[in-house]
Amino acid sequence: MTHPMLTKHRDKLDAATAAIASRDYYSAYPESPSPRIYGETAAADGKAEFESVLGGEFTLDLPGITDYVATEDSPFGIELGVHYPRVPADKLITAAQAAWPSWRDTDPATRAGVCVEILDRIHSHVFALANAVHATTGQAFVMAFQAGGPHALDRGLEAVAYGYAEQLRTPATARWEKPAKGEPLVMNKTFHIAPRGIALVIGCNTFPTWNSYPGLFASLVTGNPVIVKPHPHAVLPLALTVKYAREVLAEAGFDPNLVTLAAEDPSDRVAAELATDPRVRIVDFTGSNEFGDWLEANARQAQVYTEKAGVNTIVVDSTDDFKGMCRNIAFTLSLYSGQMCTTSQAIFIPQDGIDTPDGRLSADEVVTGIATAVGKLTGDAERAVEIIGAIVSPQGVERITAAADSGEVVLASKALTHPTYPGARVHTPLLVKVPAEAKKAYGTECFGPITYLVTTADTAQSLQLVSEVVGEQGALTMGVYSTDEAVLDDAERTARDVAVHLSCNLTGGVFVNQSAAFSDFHGSGGNAAANAALTNPHYVSGRFTIVQSRRHG
Amino acid sequence: MTHPMLTKHRDKLDAATAAIASRDYYSAYPESPSPRIYGETAAADGKAEFESVLGGEFTLDLPGITDYVATEDSPFGIELGVHYPRVPADKLITAAQAAWPSWRDTDPATRAGVCVEILDRIHSHVFALANAVHATTGQAFVMAFQAGGPHALDRGLEAVAYGYAEQLRTPATARWEKPAKGEPLVMNKTFHIAPRGIALVIGCNTFPTWNSYPGLFASLVTGNPVIVKPHPHAVLPLALTVKYAREVLAEAGFDPNLVTLAAEDPSDRVAAELATDPRVRIVDFTGSNEFGDWLEANARQAQVYTEKAGVNTIVVDSTDDFKGMCRNIAFTLSLYSGQMCTTSQAIFIPQDGIDTPDGRLSADEVVTGIATAVGKLTGDAERAVEIIGAIVSPQGVERITAAADSGEVVLASKALTHPTYPGARVHTPLLVKVPAEAKKAYGTECFGPITYLVTTADTAQSLQLVSEVVGEQGALTMGVYSTDEAVLDDAERTARDVAVHLSCNLTGGVFVNQSAAFSDFHGSGGNAAANAALTNPHYVSGRFTIVQSRRHG
Repeated sequence: MTHPMLTKHRDKLDAATAAIASRDYYSAYPESPSPRIYGETAAADGKAEFESVLGGEFTLDLPGITDYVATEDSPFGIELGVHYPRVPADKLITAAQAAWPSWRDTDPATRAGVCVEILDRIHSHVFALANAVHATTGQAFVMAFQAGGPHALDRGLEAVAYGYAEQLRTPATARWEKPAKGEPLVMNKTFHIAPRGIALVIGCNTFPTWNSYPGLFASLVTGNPVIVKPHPHAVLPLALTVKYAREVLAEAGFDPNLVTLAAEDPSDRVAAELATDPRVRIVDFTGSNEFGDWLEANARQAQVYTEKAGVNTIVVDSTDDFKGMCRNIAFTLSLYSGQMCTTSQAIFIPQDGIDTPDGRLSADEVVTGIATAVGKLTGDAERAVEIIGAIVSPQGVERITAAADSGEVVLASKALTHPTYPGARVHTPLLVKVPAEAKKAYGTECFGPITYLVTTADTAQSLQLVSEVVGEQGALTMGVYSTDEAVLDDAERTARDVAVHLSCNLTGGVFVNQSAAFSDFHGSGGNAAANAALTNPHYVSGRFTIVQSRRHG
Repeated sequence: MTHPMLTKHRDKLDAATAAIASRDYYSAYPESPSPRIYGETAAADGKAEFESVLGGEFTLDLPGITDYVATEDSPFGIELGVHYPRVPADKLITAAQAAWPSWRDTDPATRAGVCVEILDRIHSHVFALANAVHATTGQAFVMAFQAGGPHALDRGLEAVAYGYAEQLRTPATARWEKPAKGEPLVMNKTFHIAPRGIALVIGCNTFPTWNSYPGLFASLVTGNPVIVKPHPHAVLPLALTVKYAREVLAEAGFDPNLVTLAAEDPSDRVAAELATDPRVRIVDFTGSNEFGDWLEANARQAQVYTEKAGVNTIVVDSTDDFKGMCRNIAFTLSLYSGQMCTTSQAIFIPQDGIDTPDGRLSADEVVTGIATAVGKLTGDAERAVEIIGAIVSPQGVERITAAADSGEVVLASKALTHPTYPGARVHTPLLVKVPAEAKKAYGTECFGPITYLVTTADTAQSLQLVSEVVGEQGALTMGVYSTDEAVLDDAERTARDVAVHLSCNLTGGVFVNQSAAFSDFHGSGGNAAANAALTNPHYVSGRFTIVQSRRHG
């Protein structure tokens, strides 16, 4: 009997599975919030849903609720006041264990069908989700909609496709017939998918859905219950996610406690408690190196997938479109105030300058070109806030102040007043010029709108520094600008050596800090910035094992 | 240009790849040492090759040899006296690093072709290898030939097939075309296989080739140089392996230092030194829980694959072939003196007895049936030694003595004189009957020819004890005998819960302690006995990452 949710989503699942194999363009969820696509009332309905939960107790029928906690603090100063149910860690684990068997024992295709229905259900509330992401992360609304909604859902679907495909690698049964003297030896074999067990997803403040959906759906589709532990400042996007996941699971005939929410007061340290519980077998984490490293060292009973911090770089060697290059880099540095794990932090420029169609430009002219482009994008407050959003935490503002002392400021950061949210923490990007020797400054992750323009002896030194910095600190992205094929080849070799994804000569509508689900990998899992790629076969294959049974045929 | 070694082995590679997908019977290397298969002179030639290396310096042109060490101590008392070149750990690592680039950067298909040629080359010396395995492990000759030769080679080929297939999961290139206003956005993408880096394979004394080949070939085919660290008492089988691997690599146009040997004096502790070197990125280990756990905790810069110890069990509930059951179990307990990581250690029997075609048999009758069958197999020294071989270490003999005090001895272990090797350490299996409460005895791994026959309240308790013991200690195999489908289903559920592979009602020529490459998984990676399955997709997918590069199309 095919589960009706599988029947309903078969085509989407097949398309997603084909896309991860071909890595062509594919998207299941439209990224434009246009009313022509989503309908005339969608935006207003979503905003109304969002507003309806503010200031009250969030309804989630979790087992064993002890009390409610309100911990959010919007970078825009939006009053949220949502109170989330708090459940002791042990209760969440016991509930997940009890919910597990029927989900564990059903077939992978049914799980995939139910997972796609969850994604679609969330998508039908995408404007509410976008408002929640906007308010909690400080992302401008359109970005919150895209990155927090369709792009996150696409990444979730990608994880479903990978997890589903991976479970089909080994056949469910086999007949083994070995030639022997007289009668052949015949064994009938059954290969069971044996899901690992309870999974924990630890969300981050900046991308609560985008960074959580891969782990959440990878674990779920491979048969594991998932406890979602949101960042205390970005609970609502994941609370909505859990709400709709539970709704679909119940409708599909499964126990909704397969997906629960672990809201906490930050002093609870519930992430550490859950992550080291012997019953928790999978941990997905996005956040600081400190806690990520701690999890890798201490959650030894679990498969631990971490995405931490790194130092993303761009090497400028030469270009056939100087303005396009500057515009493209400026957008990357400005978008969400550089608070993406993929934003470039260090840009290497040879001290003797670079060749361009307008002739040779000095290093200072290149620096000025980039600084001017950033200044243009962020000069007008009303336009700027739709790109830079707000600074997610007060520490981010402190880092800007500190970084201004670490070199020659070529573009100062300014505090802006947000036209809609007077209480918003809005600061334009800071650009600092430093010499190659200042590795301590540019070679240490400095989260936020802070970019180092590093002058080097030449491009060979630039690549050498990339190799050293990324080798030590890790990175998710690297960019290079060059009209010289040999330099591009060298850059590609460097990128391979330190396992960082490379973008070459981006001057148009593709940016080094953005990746497209189904085609671009996010991270490689091969350097210190992340021990896993979201999403590839290795990211899903450890979430279950195969257990065989054999009998004489 | 297709590499000639790939052209030569394309069919074998395709057949192996098809076999891992279908899990039908497949074998590339004939397991019978018959002269009709291997030729009239093969056995004598192999023995001569083996004897030619005894008592001298083993020729291996490793870089930076400082001196030679002779550390082997044959369980049969065979004088080996082979002196192996010793190279400081740092030198081995530097040589591997220097050898790496051309292997890393060639295509997966070429690597697969070269790996198969290495396997074939080893196979052409399989009788020398069999003598080496026989002499160092204490396995009887035919077993040493089969397990140490063709079965190990098949497992190696299986790893090549998995590793090769895994590298093809992501296309080498893709064209991505995203619809956009006006012109579509077009990116050309390249996806590079980025091998992790230097791999270390730590061999064991009992199965130096069988347990090392999966990791060795999985790492090699995915583009990593491999340092092979043999057990000091079982160097020769891996020295021969390394010798022929280097020979083929050089012929294929690669640096032979892609595969090196780390022979050591046991006091060198070179395994720990190599495993924690930051340049070593992959570790494969077979051996004790103590060192395996240490590696998992300390070789944090590496992907660590361990196969450690566990407690394998059999649940006897009922049977339609009592004699077949006893014979089958007896062979498992006797083969290589129970020194396989897959040998059953605890056999659970209901205290009220079991149903058989000859009526109900009491628990004591079942115990006697198994003990008698073991006694028959091992009663005559000349026949016995061809099954039980020798005890690999003096500690094994001590464990037999100690275990005899842990319950009611139903079959005493006897020291036998080996007809060919008077100095051999030969001891027949010990069978001890204990009650269910004696979990401390039967529930702790006790390596060697020691089996506990455990009387339980009923089969439900037997399964509960399996669940507890395997849940705590891990296991690679589980057997069940029952004529009741409901009991078989319960056993299968228990097996899935603790991720142990199950064999049902084995009464013929298939044994619970033996697995067939390409069809049976060895371990699940889901319990404490091993963190990896040899071999499945997850076992190979972490040995490389994917690094992408994208440019405007």
